[in-house]
Amino acid sequence: MRLIEDRRNTPVRGRDTQFRLAQQNMLAYTFDASVPGWGPPGLNSMPFLQVAKRAIENALDEGNLLYGEDFNVTSNAIAKVTGDIYEQLTSTILWETAAHWNSFMCGGPWPTSPRYGRPAIEPNARRQVAVLNLPRRYDWVRLLVPDARTKIGAIRQQLAERDLSMPTSTPDIAIVVLPEDIAKNEVWRTPLGNLSRSSQQIVSRAHLRVEGQLEPGEIILAMALKSSLRSDRLYQPLYEANVMQFLLEGHLGAPRVEFEVHALTTEGTRAGRIYQAASLHSAGTDHAHRAVRELYEPADATQIVQRFLQFLNSRMALVDATSTAQVDLVAIDHYPSAVDSGAEEQIAVAVDLAPDWARHGAHRRGVPGRPASSPGQGALFS
Amino acid sequence: MRLIEDRRNTPVRGRDTQFRLAQQNMLAYTFDASVPGWGPPGLNSMPFLQVAKRAIENALDEGNLLYGEDFNVTSNAIAKVTGDIYEQLTSTILWETAAHWNSFMCGGPWPTSPRYGRPAIEPNARRQVAVLNLPRRYDWVRLLVPDARTKIGAIRQQLAERDLSMPTSTPDIAIVVLPEDIAKNEVWRTPLGNLSRSSQQIVSRAHLRVEGQLEPGEIILAMALKSSLRSDRLYQPLYEANVMQFLLEGHLGAPRVEFEVHALTTEGTRAGRIYQAASLHSAGTDHAHRAVRELYEPADATQIVQRFLQFLNSRMALVDATSTAQVDLVAIDHYPSAVDSGAEEQIAVAVDLAPDWARHGAHRRGVPGRPASSPGQGALFS
Repeated sequence: MRLIEDRRNTPVRGRDTQFRLAQQNMLAYTFDASVPGWGPPGLNSMPFLQVAKRAIENALDEGNLLYGEDFNVTSNAIAKVTGDIYEQLTSTILWETAAHWNSFMCGGPWPTSPRYGRPAIEPNARRQVAVLNLPRRYDWVRLLVPDARTKIGAIRQQLAERDLSMPTSTPDIAIVVLPEDIAKNEVWRTPLGNLSRSSQQIVSRAHLRVEGQLEPGEIILAMALKSSLRSDRLYQPLYEANVMQFLLEGHLGAPRVEFEVHALTTEGTRAGRIYQAASLHSAGTDHAHRAVRELYEPADATQIVQRFLQFLNSRMALVDATSTAQVDLVAIDHYPSAVDSGAEEQIAVAVDLAPDWARHGAHRRGVPGRPASSPGQGALFS
Repeated sequence: MRLIEDRRNTPVRGRDTQFRLAQQNMLAYTFDASVPGWGPPGLNSMPFLQVAKRAIENALDEGNLLYGEDFNVTSNAIAKVTGDIYEQLTSTILWETAAHWNSFMCGGPWPTSPRYGRPAIEPNARRQVAVLNLPRRYDWVRLLVPDARTKIGAIRQQLAERDLSMPTSTPDIAIVVLPEDIAKNEVWRTPLGNLSRSSQQIVSRAHLRVEGQLEPGEIILAMALKSSLRSDRLYQPLYEANVMQFLLEGHLGAPRVEFEVHALTTEGTRAGRIYQAASLHSAGTDHAHRAVRELYEPADATQIVQRFLQFLNSRMALVDATSTAQVDLVAIDHYPSAVDSGAEEQIAVAVDLAPDWARHGAHRRGVPGRPASSPGQGALFS
C-alpha cells in the first residue's frame, strides 16, 4: 500500500503536482488495527493534533525514503489533507462509539476495554443513532423525507420568485436518530475496528442509507469541523447553524437541532462571546437557545468518545421509548437503495403494515414538553 | 507634515516597530486639495485601488528618501493601513456627496462640475442624510433613541437570563436620515473640499452628533468594507446584516434596512450565490428581502458617487415629505453634546414645543404601505 502517488509521468491536467498524498491509504496504513478512542491506551490518550498528523508523517517519511531529494508536496496540499484526515478520524471515532451505543441499546453488552461509562439511559432500540460524514457540497436537505423536502422546496420557490435564496450547505458530520426500518441493518451495531479502505467506505457512504428518510426531528446534532479556526472563520458555521435551525425548528417544527464547531487548533478567543449568540429564529421566543452550542477543541480521542456519550445520554433520554412493543411491527416502507447489499440481505423485511404510523408516530420526535406534531402542523416561522 | 513616524528612539511597548505609517497625515497630504469623486477628472476616474494605494506610495517614498536602507515597514502594517484608508476615503466621498445632496434638499444649487445627475426627487429638508463612519468596536445600537435601546436591552436581558446573547458589532459606515433638529447644523451641508486633519475629524466624529437620537427607521443603509474579501470572510457581514435586520425590522418594526458589502478586491465568485440569501427574519413573510443587497467592488470614485446618488434617489423618495410646513416649529429636545461647538453656536435653538410629536411623528418613518407606528407598537418578532 503506497502512501505517496508518483504523478510525474501522469501529470494532473492544469497542475504541476508531482507527488500526491494518497489520503485513503494513509489512513488505512496508519490506523490498520484500531480506531482511536477504542484502541490501545497510548493511542487513545495521545494529543489529538498528533494523532491527526501521524498519517501525514508516515506519508512524508515514505516519500523521502522512496524519492529522496526529488520528493516534494506543497504546504497547501498538506493543509488540505490534514483537514480531511481530521474529519475522517473524528467521524470514525464517533461511528465506533455509536456502534457500541446502538448494540447496547438493542440488549448487547457494554465493552469493558477501553472502559467508558455505560449508557445512563434505559436500552431501547428506538434510541439508536447514525453518524453521517456528509460529502463536500452535499445539501443536508436531501436527508429529509419527501414531505419535509417539499415544504422546504416551497419556501425556496417562494423566495426564488423574488430572486432570493435560502442557501444550505452542509455540516461535515450529522448525528441522526435512526428510523426504525433502517435501524434493522446490523451495520449500525458493528464496530469497525480499524480505518481500512472498506471501513472508510462504510462511514463515507452511510448517508446514502438514510437519504430521503429522515424526519426533521431526527437530525439531532450537526458538526462543522475546521482544522484551524481564525476569527474571521467563526461566522460561516454560525450562519449555517442559524439557517439549519430556521428551517428545521422554525419552519418544520422540529425539536432543537444542536450545532457545534470542532477545531483542531484555534487562534484568538473571541469565539466564546460570539458563539453565545442566540439562534435568530428562536430569540424572543420561550425556547431561545444558542445557534452554536460549543466550540470544541479535542484533547484526545478518549475525550471525543466521552463527550459524545455524554451528549447521547442527555439527548436520547428525550426520545420517547414508551411504545417499544410495537417496534417489531413497524413497516419498512422507503427501503434504502442497495448500497451494501451484502449486509442488507440479512435483514428480514417486514410487511408494509402501517406506513403512516411508522413515519409520523410520536416516537419519531417526542421531546417532552413539545407535543408531537403531524406533518403540516409544524410551527410556522416563529 | 511627516508621513512616516520614526519610532526608533521611542519604541512601542511590546513591539519592534521602528517606523510607523502616519495614516492621518498620509491622507491629509495626498488629498490636500480635493476629495476623490469631487475633484479633478483624472482623480475621479482613477482606478480606485490605485487611489487608495496612492497615500501608501507617498509614505513609502518619504521613508526611503529620509531613512534610506534603514527604512522598513511590515506588509502587515501596510495591509492594515490600506484597509483604514479605503474606509476613510469611501466615507469622505460619501460625505461630500451627502453634503451636496443635503444642500440641494434645502433649496441650494446643484454643482455643475463635476457634473452628476441632479437629484430626481423633490427637494425637502426632511430628506437630508448623514454619513457615519463608525469607530471599530462601536455598537450601532448606541445610535438609537432611548426607547429603542430599551427595547433591545429588554430582549438582551431576556436572553442573558439563559446565558444567551445577541451580539451586535458595527458596520463600518451607516447612512442615516437626519432627524430634523440635528439637521439644522450647517455641517451636514458643507462640502469638505479635502481630507485635511480637520476634515477627517468632522467625518470621524459625526456619529457623536446623532448618538442616542435616531429612530430605528432612520438607519437606512449599512456598509461593511473589506479591503480584500476571501470566500470564508463572506459570512461575517452576512451574519451581521441578519442580526441588524432582525433587531431593527423584526423587533422594532422599522422599514427595510439595506446592508451592503464593499471590497477593494475580491477573490472567487461564490459571493453572488451566497449574498442572494434572504434575511432570515424576513424569509417566509410577504416582505422577504436580501440580507446583503450587493457586493460592490468600486471601479473609481465617480462610480461611488453615482451609485450613492442613485440609492438616495430611490430610498429617500420613500421619506414622506408632506408636512414640511411644520419643520420650523420642530422642537429641539435632545440636543447633541458639544462636539463642534463653533458650528453649533450658529444655530438658533427652537423652544421645546412639542417633543413627543417631534420624536414620533409619521414624518420620521413613513414608508408608503407601512403605517407609521408609535413606540411600543412596532411589530414584534416576525
